Amino acid sequence: MKFYYTPGSISLAVHIMLEMSGLEYESVAIDFSQKQQRSESFLAINPLGRVPALETEQGVITEALAILNYIDARIQSAAVDSAYIAPKSAYITAQVDAFNAFMASTVHVTHAHLWRSERWVDSESAKADMAQRVPQNLIDQFSLIEEHWLMGDWVQGAQLTSSDLYLFTISRWLKADGVEIQQFSKVHAHLLRMEQLKPVAFILNTYYS
Amino acid sequence: MKFYYTPGSISLAVHIMLEMSGLEYESVAIDFSQKQQRSESFLAINPLGRVPALETEQGVITEALAILNYIDARIQSAAVDSAYIAPKSAYITAQVDAFNAFMASTVHVTHAHLWRSERWVDSESAKADMAQRVPQNLIDQFSLIEEHWLMGDWVQGAQLTSSDLYLFTISRWLKADGVEIQQFSKVHAHLLRMEQLKPVAFILNTYYS
Repeated sequence: MKFYYTPGSISLAVHIMLEMSGLEYESVAIDFSQKQQRSESFLAINPLGRVPALETEQGVITEALAILNYIDARIQSAAVDSAYIAPKSAYITAQVDAFNAFMASTVHVTHAHLWRSERWVDSESAKADMAQRVPQNLIDQFSLIEEHWLMGDWVQGAQLTSSDLYLFTISRWLKADGVEIQQFSKVHAHLLRMEQLKPVAFILNTYYS
Repeated sequence: MKFYYTPGSISLAVHIMLEMSGLEYESVAIDFSQKQQRSESFLAINPLGRVPALETEQGVITEALAILNYIDARIQSAAVDSAYIAPKSAYITAQVDAFNAFMASTVHVTHAHLWRSERWVDSESAKADMAQRVPQNLIDQFSLIEEHWLMGDWVQGAQLTSSDLYLFTISRWLKADGVEIQQFSKVHAHLLRMEQLKPVAFILNTYYS
């Protein structure tokens, strides 16, 4: 499989999941500073011009939530042996989907209003209005994560799931978004706990060392 | 199970899926005009104050994408007999997730910029700037759906999946969002095809007759 990613983007969650899965894959970095995501060759892979994308034997899968679930299913099918991602009940699977959908459609979207405001408005004053609201919106959403979603050491309780990779990736953005992570003690402890995992340290090391 | 919904919202996709599933459920309408979604009793069910929400024997599931997948899993577990939703390969399951995640985090979010702009900006001029961009953004996204996603009679090709319920629900919003559905001939034919399905007609009839 061929995995398309960009350091600093949501593809990190999928990259860690791939590394945890034990599946064989090749990584291809897409350089946003060179606008490679808008190149003809990449638009043929993902017409939306976004990472992550996973080229499989059957075709390309897009959207972080979908790729996470697909890797999970590959692990569960017992074709591979993962020390990290264990099988889960239908109910926990639904909670993983619910958390990841909330992260994708609400929290990630809030973050994008600071960095990709040209998607939704034209004028500089509207962009400024939008940017100014982002920190408080993130504080509201992370308060909900802290109080309502984080069930234990891991998002879904005792068991590590793809929700932890999603949360970790977006938690890392808070500082640049103008939000102190320390005000969310459980989220902050979760971030530090994630950093201790070998596949997480390994992937971050390939990006930033 | 108890299903919380509001006519006109994304909960329609889930309502149709429940009706197709053959599962037993009770429906509870949440009246947005009375701000019932912000009531203490509903916030105890979904702290985000949004529909849909599904109360199961084990707890509440939120987010349309997650509830659709959960109902799908219940159907696949063969506890119920559905005439509409058939088992699918891991790859098609991934494409369902990818399409539904795109609808949830990009297309639904675009629609919300017209009707829920107060989530992201304060000033009237920024709200107007935002609203003015919505039709063109939807046209771009539906062009992508028309050319890239819609694989046959149904979104995933020959087989009806939850992606069809997601697309149908959001396609119905286009007119009020200022977009002529007729310019997307495949999407338009899909909408008319969906309206012919008995469970679809049944649910719409309970809302609007």
